[in-house]
Amino acid sequence: MTHIVMKFGGSSLADTQKIKEVARLIIERKKETKNVVVVVSAMGKTTNQLIEMANEISLLPNKREMDVLLASGEQVSISLLSMALHSLDQESISLTGWQAGIKTYGNSMKQRIKDIDTSRISQEHQRGKIVIVAGFQGYDEDDNISTLGRGGSDTSAVALAVALNCPCEIYTDVDGIYTADPRIVKNAKVISRISYEECMEMASLGAKVIEARAVDLGSRFGIPIKIALNTGQGQGTIIEKGKKDMLEENVINNVSVLDNVVLFNVNNFGKEPRQVLKLFEYFANNDINIDVISQNFNDDISFTSKKEDLEDVKTVISKFTDHKYQYKDDVIKVSVIGNGMRYQSGVAAKVYEVFTNEDVKFYQVSTSEISISYIVDQCNKEKIVTALAKTFDLEKGDHHEY
Amino acid sequence: MTHIVMKFGGSSLADTQKIKEVARLIIERKKETKNVVVVVSAMGKTTNQLIEMANEISLLPNKREMDVLLASGEQVSISLLSMALHSLDQESISLTGWQAGIKTYGNSMKQRIKDIDTSRISQEHQRGKIVIVAGFQGYDEDDNISTLGRGGSDTSAVALAVALNCPCEIYTDVDGIYTADPRIVKNAKVISRISYEECMEMASLGAKVIEARAVDLGSRFGIPIKIALNTGQGQGTIIEKGKKDMLEENVINNVSVLDNVVLFNVNNFGKEPRQVLKLFEYFANNDINIDVISQNFNDDISFTSKKEDLEDVKTVISKFTDHKYQYKDDVIKVSVIGNGMRYQSGVAAKVYEVFTNEDVKFYQVSTSEISISYIVDQCNKEKIVTALAKTFDLEKGDHHEY
Repeated sequence: MTHIVMKFGGSSLADTQKIKEVARLIIERKKETKNVVVVVSAMGKTTNQLIEMANEISLLPNKREMDVLLASGEQVSISLLSMALHSLDQESISLTGWQAGIKTYGNSMKQRIKDIDTSRISQEHQRGKIVIVAGFQGYDEDDNISTLGRGGSDTSAVALAVALNCPCEIYTDVDGIYTADPRIVKNAKVISRISYEECMEMASLGAKVIEARAVDLGSRFGIPIKIALNTGQGQGTIIEKGKKDMLEENVINNVSVLDNVVLFNVNNFGKEPRQVLKLFEYFANNDINIDVISQNFNDDISFTSKKEDLEDVKTVISKFTDHKYQYKDDVIKVSVIGNGMRYQSGVAAKVYEVFTNEDVKFYQVSTSEISISYIVDQCNKEKIVTALAKTFDLEKGDHHEY
Repeated sequence: MTHIVMKFGGSSLADTQKIKEVARLIIERKKETKNVVVVVSAMGKTTNQLIEMANEISLLPNKREMDVLLASGEQVSISLLSMALHSLDQESISLTGWQAGIKTYGNSMKQRIKDIDTSRISQEHQRGKIVIVAGFQGYDEDDNISTLGRGGSDTSAVALAVALNCPCEIYTDVDGIYTADPRIVKNAKVISRISYEECMEMASLGAKVIEARAVDLGSRFGIPIKIALNTGQGQGTIIEKGKKDMLEENVINNVSVLDNVVLFNVNNFGKEPRQVLKLFEYFANNDINIDVISQNFNDDISFTSKKEDLEDVKTVISKFTDHKYQYKDDVIKVSVIGNGMRYQSGVAAKVYEVFTNEDVKFYQVSTSEISISYIVDQCNKEKIVTALAKTFDLEKGDHHEY
């Protein structure tokens, strides 16, 4: 392999001691790969501190200037990491977004990458240097400094891997993507290989390990993305193209939980479909996330929201209808996710069997091509997640382990 | 006047509250001048904090990366100041060194400005915006981020004033250049006009108000530089070309004091001129500053150094000669400075009279075209400085006040 992109997030670079440890890991990796690009985020809480200062200045800070402000955070970490490599006698050079040729377009604070001119990176590689690139940032066609918004550094890393046509390694403080939350399922194991689609589904169903936007980019260009521990230990998880030949793989790869869900039920509201449409349009336009919508034979309309939006949702419902409504604010969403569901049937039945055996009631169900989600009482979380993990071979020591 | 450059240092931008105050001052100034460029340093102690982190990483941090690291400091202050202007409904835009077209050359951490391409600045002025430029930084011919070293922000400001052919205003926490240290001379007054040469002489003789490098640049291009209080109050001091017609101006403009001086006397060393030369060459090559050198009729060689170099100087003397030496480490250098000395004689005699009247002994004298410096006992500081200020009309209420 001639090229590799390694990415380190803010918690891996929280202080100068951690930066030195990351430098040592990079040097180990460089022994196996000729040309190394390292993408970094801002150190620890830097970004939050910068945002705090901006808010002291203005309640609505100018967005073009927010880009300039936030981009300074990665400039600090690229230079410190490059110094750490130099102090270990490893030639390296730091490049900001504009120096690395990361061209962007779109609105301030959430720009998208248009193109990457890798000539400077290649030049520095030819000189034997490790190239440290500031993640999360680039520059627009008018030479303004831009930032990529949420998940920007992961996206920078994958985009550079696309431009250099090489694998991407995302280092973080967990040793990979787990089959289930290890705090709930003690024996949960690291998934060694997972498809882009499953990973994106997990991100949207509550188990965030990497930004869906970065996975989507990797998916479109077929760039394998590895999630690995920032100490270099363990095998990690490789996110790649899903394979049809699933004989040796699990049908279900993961059980995810989304906490703090509220389930609403508006009586007979389904009789006024135009009002229902207006209600959901209003939610969408006001960034209130509504999920798992269903209508029963009484024409009741049910849907879920995040608990933090509870008061807003109540106000909005009263705005659009006089029908009575009830809500439960002690529920969660449990999802089973697996690319294998595309090719194997019977998963829903198997899950239903688990719910029955465990005597756990569910209020709502929704499905996608590779997932099924259930709304259940908060108090049943541990019981049902553990049972599902056992049923679908998601624990260590199971015969499906790689 | 169509253009003006305003410069604010780190202490004027120490927190977000101060940044908002600076923004208000800039808006007042903009009412009088169409095109405003503001040059800023990093906030308060930022630069020191960044250096501290670098030293945690490495005892000898890579200098190219130090430039990248330190340049992030001004990037924070330009963006916050521009946000503050926006929040007061004033259009503005921040530009880093490379965005502002500040091209540099030379060694990392002490680059020199080669040229400024002001096209982006002019473009933004045409759009009615105040342009906020990061001081202290630029970019070299290979698109690396560079910094200008000590006094870099003052230099950036004057260089931009040169490029735009307009006056430069340096805002600081004193209301101008004083005739003497107000802590010693209670009635010391602000000098309204002073020549570049006097100002540079003052900088080198202990009274630092602005970096000599910036004054030198202003001098070469005839750019008037105003030193003013960062609240906008007071008249400030204008540094400009010295005039021959000094009839209405003071012969002496300033009494400066350099504390913590050590006076050395090496017996009979003057008989070995080649060794003396070697000694002084060694001091120069090792960044040990030696000053006020003299030789008496006993061939004793006397010179002064900074107290912080005392031990080093003792070691070096012993290295080059076996002659006995004495030193006094409780002396100071008192200097009178005035462009008028070029055109009026009798200043030395007048000063001698003051020393005699006050019964203050001096050990050494040195002169330049526009200054005379005396080495005296530390304990006589207040007495002699006060008397000199009185004699040369450097107090408030004197008839020479402007």
